[in-house]
Amino acid sequence: MERIPILKMGPYLLVTIQIDLYDRLALNLENDLISMVSKTEARGVLIDISAVSIVDSFMGRILGNIASMSRIMDAETVVVGMQPAVAITLVELGLTLQGVHTALNVERGMELLQTMIGSQPDSTEDDEEEPDDCND
Amino acid sequence: MERIPILKMGPYLLVTIQIDLYDRLALNLENDLISMVSKTEARGVLIDISAVSIVDSFMGRILGNIASMSRIMDAETVVVGMQPAVAITLVELGLTLQGVHTALNVERGMELLQTMIGSQPDSTEDDEEEPDDCND
Repeated sequence: MERIPILKMGPYLLVTIQIDLYDRLALNLENDLISMVSKTEARGVLIDISAVSIVDSFMGRILGNIASMSRIMDAETVVVGMQPAVAITLVELGLTLQGVHTALNVERGMELLQTMIGSQPDSTEDDEEEPDDCND
Repeated sequence: MERIPILKMGPYLLVTIQIDLYDRLALNLENDLISMVSKTEARGVLIDISAVSIVDSFMGRILGNIASMSRIMDAETVVVGMQPAVAITLVELGLTLQGVHTALNVERGMELLQTMIGSQPDSTEDDEEEPDDCND
């Protein structure tokens, strides 16, 4: 049984898709990724598809699923390294990869994640002075 | 023709091996990697083999080759993510992966690279005051 390795890089997880995703492999990837997000408390997921030459509706749905699941777990997903031909095909097919962010390469993807995470109100960064109205 | 993607991460290159290396694929990987080291002026190469469950003498030779070639191009190579069973097999087979550094995971591998590169005399860091003896 093949599994796609998930690499932890600081606060992010990196997945490189090199082989065609079939049902079970995609399902395993979703499961593994969500477990890893939970275990490592990752804030972002980078999915590199530079080796993928064909993105069909199945692949599009898997990427969308991963993005939605990760968002529920408070992690953003960025798909990086898309080949120009793949982008052309996606638009021609009308597949818009909804809810999935994209970036040119891993480095730009990391910058994007940093911006996205940095712009979120981070509750751990400064303890907000809430009006203390529990007087009992 | 399949190719293994090479990801640029700052001063390092990252390769994740997910499929069995056969002759042509391994040759392509060597070529691509050396071209990338040259093009991006990378100082280190990280090879993740966490998805590899069998390392034989062929694989060992490829890893050794990549390390030797990279070193000539002034880049260090670290193999990361080796499965425990693979380490056991390597030792039992007497394959020592000569000239190849190893680390537990990508993060530790990056730390190792930083240490290795940091300890090298870096000519760009400070311009040495050479005795100026060209008086003509």
